[in-house]
Amino acid sequence: MAEPTILTPERILEAAEDVLRRFGPAKATVVDVARALGVSHGSVYRHFPSKAALREAVLERWLDRVSSPLAVIANGDGPAPDRLRRWFDTLIAAKRVKVLDDPEMFATYSTLAADSREVVGKHVATLAAHLARIVADGVAQGVFAAENPEASGRALLDATARFHHPAHAAEWSDPTIATAFDGVWELVMRGLESGRA
Amino acid sequence: MAEPTILTPERILEAAEDVLRRFGPAKATVVDVARALGVSHGSVYRHFPSKAALREAVLERWLDRVSSPLAVIANGDGPAPDRLRRWFDTLIAAKRVKVLDDPEMFATYSTLAADSREVVGKHVATLAAHLARIVADGVAQGVFAAENPEASGRALLDATARFHHPAHAAEWSDPTIATAFDGVWELVMRGLESGRA
Repeated sequence: MAEPTILTPERILEAAEDVLRRFGPAKATVVDVARALGVSHGSVYRHFPSKAALREAVLERWLDRVSSPLAVIANGDGPAPDRLRRWFDTLIAAKRVKVLDDPEMFATYSTLAADSREVVGKHVATLAAHLARIVADGVAQGVFAAENPEASGRALLDATARFHHPAHAAEWSDPTIATAFDGVWELVMRGLESGRA
Repeated sequence: MAEPTILTPERILEAAEDVLRRFGPAKATVVDVARALGVSHGSVYRHFPSKAALREAVLERWLDRVSSPLAVIANGDGPAPDRLRRWFDTLIAAKRVKVLDDPEMFATYSTLAADSREVVGKHVATLAAHLARIVADGVAQGVFAAENPEASGRALLDATARFHHPAHAAEWSDPTIATAFDGVWELVMRGLESGRA
């Protein structure tokens, strides 16, 4: 028998992710998670008051794994246009790896996301704030002319939805997708660089 | 009894759309369409060689109803920025009306579209060509600085996917969607107006 270990939120979330992977979002229950950990479901509920709360926490953890490397780029140094491109390349590559390597888990998280608009909204706000930060740096560096970096950050995220929003995942294997991104990139970079007449 | 009328492709397509509406895309058959018209299924097959061909023609007709009013704007006269905005407002309003007024039929057409990438590809190319035409006019009018109107047309369509691509239909009732579109519009308009340094 395994040594008894302390039941941390992190251990519960790991087990919950594993249970979602095995049973799928329609069937996975808190009892399954408790069983996988060898504890009572009451012990799980002491950390997460409901199945919905547990699922939201699993989703949040997954989304944090997407945004953490992006935060490093957003909060880093260097020319803003390079960081902006690196930020998008990193986001797009991460999404693509997730959908190609583990399409079932990608679908599971898309289901969780559809049920947790608030968690997704927070994630989107985090990403938009990263972009606003880079745009503001670009303005300070004299390479971008945006008057409202926050609005520009949100606009950049919206204008590139086709390349990172899960609803478009089926299009990412299209051989023209990289050229399409370059076209949008060119257009929005010109927009950022230009003070409007 | 109704007077016998000539069986035209147009009559078959109308009946097919009606049958899809009543039975849904999973159940509707060519036999249902023939029955609705009071003809043999052989008569239908003389115009459309397969169920897939009939469905593609129904989809094409539906997409043509979306693109026809847009073609009028694209091929019209007047300042390019105004026409560009009118083109997008018209597209976005048409999609929104379709999804709000008849969500089941919208879902049916989304299913047909997923099965007919070629028809959808042709439609997207038509829309991109409209945009290229308006951008080229804007360059001739001295208001846009785009070097490659065709690439800009495609980029404009991609950059606005969130506001007209059916995969985002659930987001169109979000109260912030109009502001979000304005943000992307501002950014891409600056991009079109600016010759890159």
